[in-house]
Amino acid sequence: MNEVYLVGAGMTEFGDFEGKSVKALGGEAVYRALQDSEVNREDVEFACCGNFGSALFGSQGKTVGQLSLKEVGITGIPVVNVENGGATGAQSFRTAHTQIASGEVDVAIAMGVEKMSGIETVQLLNVMANAGDRELEGGNGITWPGLFAMIARRRMNDVGTTREQMAQVTVNHHDNATKNPYAQRQESITMEDVFDSPPVASPLHLYESCPTSDGAAAVVLASKSVAKEFTNNPIRVASTVGISGDYPDDLDIAHAETVGKAADKAYEEADRSPEDIDVVEIHDAFSIEEPIYLEELGFCEFGEGDRLIEEGVTALDGDIPFCPSGGLLARGHPIGATGIAQLVELFWQLRGEAGDRQVADAEVALAQIVGTFVNIDYGCVIVSILEQTNL
Amino acid sequence: MNEVYLVGAGMTEFGDFEGKSVKALGGEAVYRALQDSEVNREDVEFACCGNFGSALFGSQGKTVGQLSLKEVGITGIPVVNVENGGATGAQSFRTAHTQIASGEVDVAIAMGVEKMSGIETVQLLNVMANAGDRELEGGNGITWPGLFAMIARRRMNDVGTTREQMAQVTVNHHDNATKNPYAQRQESITMEDVFDSPPVASPLHLYESCPTSDGAAAVVLASKSVAKEFTNNPIRVASTVGISGDYPDDLDIAHAETVGKAADKAYEEADRSPEDIDVVEIHDAFSIEEPIYLEELGFCEFGEGDRLIEEGVTALDGDIPFCPSGGLLARGHPIGATGIAQLVELFWQLRGEAGDRQVADAEVALAQIVGTFVNIDYGCVIVSILEQTNL
Repeated sequence: MNEVYLVGAGMTEFGDFEGKSVKALGGEAVYRALQDSEVNREDVEFACCGNFGSALFGSQGKTVGQLSLKEVGITGIPVVNVENGGATGAQSFRTAHTQIASGEVDVAIAMGVEKMSGIETVQLLNVMANAGDRELEGGNGITWPGLFAMIARRRMNDVGTTREQMAQVTVNHHDNATKNPYAQRQESITMEDVFDSPPVASPLHLYESCPTSDGAAAVVLASKSVAKEFTNNPIRVASTVGISGDYPDDLDIAHAETVGKAADKAYEEADRSPEDIDVVEIHDAFSIEEPIYLEELGFCEFGEGDRLIEEGVTALDGDIPFCPSGGLLARGHPIGATGIAQLVELFWQLRGEAGDRQVADAEVALAQIVGTFVNIDYGCVIVSILEQTNL
Repeated sequence: MNEVYLVGAGMTEFGDFEGKSVKALGGEAVYRALQDSEVNREDVEFACCGNFGSALFGSQGKTVGQLSLKEVGITGIPVVNVENGGATGAQSFRTAHTQIASGEVDVAIAMGVEKMSGIETVQLLNVMANAGDRELEGGNGITWPGLFAMIARRRMNDVGTTREQMAQVTVNHHDNATKNPYAQRQESITMEDVFDSPPVASPLHLYESCPTSDGAAAVVLASKSVAKEFTNNPIRVASTVGISGDYPDDLDIAHAETVGKAADKAYEEADRSPEDIDVVEIHDAFSIEEPIYLEELGFCEFGEGDRLIEEGVTALDGDIPFCPSGGLLARGHPIGATGIAQLVELFWQLRGEAGDRQVADAEVALAQIVGTFVNIDYGCVIVSILEQTNL
């Protein structure tokens, strides 16, 4: 398989963009990613678009890739639309990555976009049930906030996670978001604000749950042979791994074993270990996810994650900053865009272009995301490692 | 790129399966495809699922691949869900094909499924607008039947296509479907029946428009190195090409130029010409499509297609049988499943397993499909050529 590099990245602001169409958002992200590189429209040979299903939120929700690309004048190339629940954006990246790794093309775009604003919250729960198993999970009344609340209760019982440790996650990510002009929630919050916000599914409060978002993001991928033509500062994709859960006999929701498996494989393929990682973006749709992934990604043992968060290890000035962008909790979570937005942030971090939220000496970065139904320990987990290069 | 073979194929009956879930349909197709081969569940390394959007029709419509595979006990592998309008199923095939062609895996499943029954027709038009450009096409009141009616009017004006020539297409395909136990509409119809059926969008009548369908289909793909382990009669994928339209300044809807471009490339990659093709499956969502594709696929010159159909060239006993399965018009069109069902039919034809509808001496076959919005001359066109092999 050929080596793959990122040579450009761009995104729209995340937020509530009533009146802006899905294809306008998607087109804007692609435009910004192309502007960020020396890649011209005619250089692009393949494109993949992640969209969870804007149609379910009342907007164009199919053939979104073709429509977004046409907005910036890119037609005549193969375009694929992909979906993998919360991992939709990362799947878009992996699909484009495979096209280059296989040698089929030299330049590809991976984009993601979602338009969710304006939907009633109760209808949102119904729509999001499609990211899970409607019949088994939805049919039994399990919503996503409810599921993660159960996970939080399990952790509280099994390893003694405290409400303060969970709340610290969203306080950190909101702090980071105040330094990110693309973030939806650029406001600092205190732990008291978290507990004062309405409970969504006890013990999780509103600020511990990602907002409803519109937005788009795009990256430009290139093969090793052409990467230097398009930028003097390409970022190497050291590895990208996507797997599904294994349907364990005794699923323990205090862990996320599939995340651990994907991470092990990603480290191996990249010839890296957790000690090498300088900055991380995770799927923090709910605050309780961070301690679990901190453990599964190999940064500590099971049951130690919560304490490390309390000690500031994952804060912007900590040893392993998590979600300098603000993450899903504060940058926002336009589902199809999120997996790409993680890569955009890490691209900027590794190039030293992340402004006030720049992580010092960031040379190696890791992105992690989960998606689709939980009863097999997630239907899609994707872990990617990016690194600076002297190419 | 490595050679790819089909080693197993299966599908559900197409029809109206109220009460059967999307994942049950999907799982059944995968089960049948595996039963058709010596492939075991643990041999499968990758899977792709095409689903246009059953959620829009009121069923599970996301993460459909993972859920369908879990039904038959396949978990723990990478699964990707793809969408490309009417070409969704074929895109699923192409995505799985790339995984094997690149050398990344040796055995993959490509499946497609859709659950559409029970939807009101007016809501169906609204849902299907997502396969086009909602804003530009849907926003101007252009529905799919309306669009193909305009194409029919254009052809009638430009090349003198008659209503009888168009109706002959659906009469042929319904005849074929009476010989296909998987077909939704296993009834012979006369030209009078066509004209007596309600007009859908003049000049197209109900029988010239595909039905609303539930169904699923799956194929098992294998690399050259392992194909013989799984069947003593593999079918070779000689080529598979997917492209998008080019946004011509002066789009002529009497043609489908992008189909011609994809076909040229598919013939070239397969080292084949139209004269080699023994049997064809096309995207016949509307009867008017057949003469256009007959021309664009290189079987005759522009403007000659209609006359050849009248002369019986595309009938089951003609020189180039089109849609022995009954096609979208009579086998049915569960959108995400259709592109795979075409390959299932051709797999059976090339193995001599097509029963009463078997095309004599079928050695080389072609599948063609179109999808997504039309104002760039289709956002996705896929043409694949399959052939017998002595592997």
